[in-house]
Amino acid sequence: MTQNPNELLELAQKVGNRLLETGLTVCAAESCTGGLLMSNLTDVPGSSAYALGGVVSYSNQAKMQLVAVQKATLVAHGAVSEPTAREMAIGVRALFRADIGVSVTGIAGPGGGTPEKPVGLVYVGCAWGNEKVNVVEYRWESDRAGNKKHSVIAGLNAILAAIEDLII
Amino acid sequence: MTQNPNELLELAQKVGNRLLETGLTVCAAESCTGGLLMSNLTDVPGSSAYALGGVVSYSNQAKMQLVAVQKATLVAHGAVSEPTAREMAIGVRALFRADIGVSVTGIAGPGGGTPEKPVGLVYVGCAWGNEKVNVVEYRWESDRAGNKKHSVIAGLNAILAAIEDLII
Repeated sequence: MTQNPNELLELAQKVGNRLLETGLTVCAAESCTGGLLMSNLTDVPGSSAYALGGVVSYSNQAKMQLVAVQKATLVAHGAVSEPTAREMAIGVRALFRADIGVSVTGIAGPGGGTPEKPVGLVYVGCAWGNEKVNVVEYRWESDRAGNKKHSVIAGLNAILAAIEDLII
Repeated sequence: MTQNPNELLELAQKVGNRLLETGLTVCAAESCTGGLLMSNLTDVPGSSAYALGGVVSYSNQAKMQLVAVQKATLVAHGAVSEPTAREMAIGVRALFRADIGVSVTGIAGPGGGTPEKPVGLVYVGCAWGNEKVNVVEYRWESDRAGNKKHSVIAGLNAILAAIEDLII
């Protein structure tokens, strides 16, 4: 984990500046980060101009009810999977009618890991534009707090990438 | 602001232990804390047993759409008000069908303050039991990060109070 204590705030500020410059809006569906991504986004004064809100869909019920993850997806692939992250990003973007929807689902640890899906496995999804979606798989090797922080950074960078794609 | 860096985690652990002991569940609707309350609740390993999820209802649209705050309430009292905090707590509890619903709405600053509603004004609501609701008004005098942290602590303590009332 990085040693710069201001790294998250600086990155959130960078994301915020780009959103302000472009007039784009963002929202988030979070599982293992538990709201930390949206909290960091809104650590920036004035972020209400572009941060519409978020959902902490910790339970499977919340994933289905709030951000329209299909039950079949959860049954076939599990809550921590590429397809679930994809549907969370699409679903939260539709829910908030935002330009960009970001999602995080993973296993922060220390419990909950399996040989197939170990602690630190996290999927970060992003939906934007005309049905564009990107999901990246990460395998962090930190503790619970570190895995959450790494995932937030990945989510913020996913927003930056979506902004750059949208303004081409 | 307190100088104990582990205060939040220790308080979240205390809340988590009480929720585990009592089998109760919790959810949160957050505005000015931006997800930080739920993130702190879920910093505790195993918190998925009792933390069903949350909503970051940063915009008025999100407050109405997701946690059923009435437009008339927002018009008459504003987003940062006792009635809005009350409806957010009731609304999020219903949304997640949780035993306890906690809400936070306020002005974290540095912008957004008025003489009537200054920076640091925060309402923390809690809904539980048979239509029980409590809302407390706070006037923090810290910076944005400090006002968010104070509000999270107040929200966690509101959950503790609701637990104790529920198990009488």
